[in-house]
Amino acid sequence: MQQKATIKNIIKASKNVYQHMSPTPLRHYQQLSDLIGAHVWLKHENHNPTCAFKVRGGINLVSQLSTQQKNAGLYTASTGNHGQSIAYAAKVHNCKAFIYVPIGANTGKVAAMESNGAKVIYDGNNFDEARAAALMASQENNGVFIGPTDEDLINGVGSYALEIINDLPDVDVIIVPVGAGSGICATSIVAKAINPKIRIIGVQSAQAPAQQLSWFNQQLIEADNTTIAEGVATGVPFINTQKIMWENVDEFILVEDHEIIKANKTLIEATHNLIEEASAATFAAAEKVKSQFKNKNIALVMSGGNISMQNLTNYIK
Amino acid sequence: MQQKATIKNIIKASKNVYQHMSPTPLRHYQQLSDLIGAHVWLKHENHNPTCAFKVRGGINLVSQLSTQQKNAGLYTASTGNHGQSIAYAAKVHNCKAFIYVPIGANTGKVAAMESNGAKVIYDGNNFDEARAAALMASQENNGVFIGPTDEDLINGVGSYALEIINDLPDVDVIIVPVGAGSGICATSIVAKAINPKIRIIGVQSAQAPAQQLSWFNQQLIEADNTTIAEGVATGVPFINTQKIMWENVDEFILVEDHEIIKANKTLIEATHNLIEEASAATFAAAEKVKSQFKNKNIALVMSGGNISMQNLTNYIK
Repeated sequence: MQQKATIKNIIKASKNVYQHMSPTPLRHYQQLSDLIGAHVWLKHENHNPTCAFKVRGGINLVSQLSTQQKNAGLYTASTGNHGQSIAYAAKVHNCKAFIYVPIGANTGKVAAMESNGAKVIYDGNNFDEARAAALMASQENNGVFIGPTDEDLINGVGSYALEIINDLPDVDVIIVPVGAGSGICATSIVAKAINPKIRIIGVQSAQAPAQQLSWFNQQLIEADNTTIAEGVATGVPFINTQKIMWENVDEFILVEDHEIIKANKTLIEATHNLIEEASAATFAAAEKVKSQFKNKNIALVMSGGNISMQNLTNYIK
Repeated sequence: MQQKATIKNIIKASKNVYQHMSPTPLRHYQQLSDLIGAHVWLKHENHNPTCAFKVRGGINLVSQLSTQQKNAGLYTASTGNHGQSIAYAAKVHNCKAFIYVPIGANTGKVAAMESNGAKVIYDGNNFDEARAAALMASQENNGVFIGPTDEDLINGVGSYALEIINDLPDVDVIIVPVGAGSGICATSIVAKAINPKIRIIGVQSAQAPAQQLSWFNQQLIEADNTTIAEGVATGVPFINTQKIMWENVDEFILVEDHEIIKANKTLIEATHNLIEEASAATFAAAEKVKSQFKNKNIALVMSGGNISMQNLTNYIK
């Protein structure tokens, strides 16, 4: 039985998270601040194991399973960071993970899952088919099925939001890339509980606007999904994360893929960190509406660093 | 009056360091371990502010200055990470830094120094001339001159070595890139005090072997300096760091620039971290002598992440 996503449960979850990882830095960058006309802080979730924020959720979820459940194995579907998170969490908790990926999945990410000891199964032509296969296998084997927006994942992820406010109590705005929505839900729950004036802004690509459209219209709307930014490439919204967003999110910005690419180059050059496209979308959003940020403290969530070498080459050349 | 570099003073210095930064992760990578046939751990000094280990030394040195000294200003010469370290340390301690750089210095690094509030002065055609100008200016202004191998820098840097052994008490080998020598001196002082069996290996490029030649022959020897790896590009050795190396360092490996470039690509792809050439030299060295490491715990010091965008593009394409 998972815990509901609340600030109380996020605080509890953070104890589980820090058993297996340390807080990440929130760092001020003068060059980026000058470009936006505000105080720009980056939350370096790319410094995590697996190079993405999701590992916090995986660690928290798995830490709450019984020995029997752990022995039965974890089943999930993923094309990217979520699968790496569950693989890593399974490794540190000594249990077996079965990650279902669609045929043709990114070989680099599959290798990363396997290097953490997960069994990767190619099944289905897209994420939904892989997900159905994972669900069926979990039922056949009495295993634990993990969905991408499970509340225990949100609670674990919330530890990064606590860190932001701990390091910068005067934060005015937090901009979060939205994939399935666990990051922005966790961030908004923490921020609104501690200081409702903190403005929470979501970002998606205009080339994959399903979550933004669903938030704006307060109903689930599917949309085209052709963005190059894997971490925000969501074509089908999720009801549990949408409900939290309807309540807590102040603004939801769409940016064009070409703006993301430009921002990605800026961030890599200015920070000497590998930053993935979804994270770069937050800076592109900040540039787009910078007139509202004058002299404010803006935290941008660098959700991950898992950019492909080919895209990296294309962006910085 | 600076403190001598000893494990006791390194432990003291770590208190100063953690006033302004957090420990960095030591992380195990299965893919790299498979390549070497050992347990390979990377010490992520690229996660530091300024993206390099040297910031620890700068913070420690400046924290011990009197108010009068801080008000007089800090003077140093640098073409890279050392200057960024002193600029950052000056910023967090609210004092002024004057960094002398040779004409034609790397504009990206100069920008990074300036973004931390340092005054950068172009003076001289090479590092030695810039250093002479900095020394003269410090004397004219009664300022504090900081050399690249000052013992208070070594003491601050040693905090990363304490972290390695704290996180992995069973470490067998630590491989450190050698520039001026503060990193390997600090590492070897800590390791030999705690467990003399820990093997300390230095690395330089065969295209800049002055420190290796001086260590091997136990006398100061200058050498050609044409390597692409800025962080280990030392043509003139330093007597104080050599003396510590003569006592503590077990082995000193030279690797070719083309091996560094190949290793750099491997590290960036496997870790999704930006890694600079000097750090990559440690992996190239591990590959070279991997037969001696079977199943051992090998820690490689990722001294920094300040690779130029142009080199990055060339390496990963």
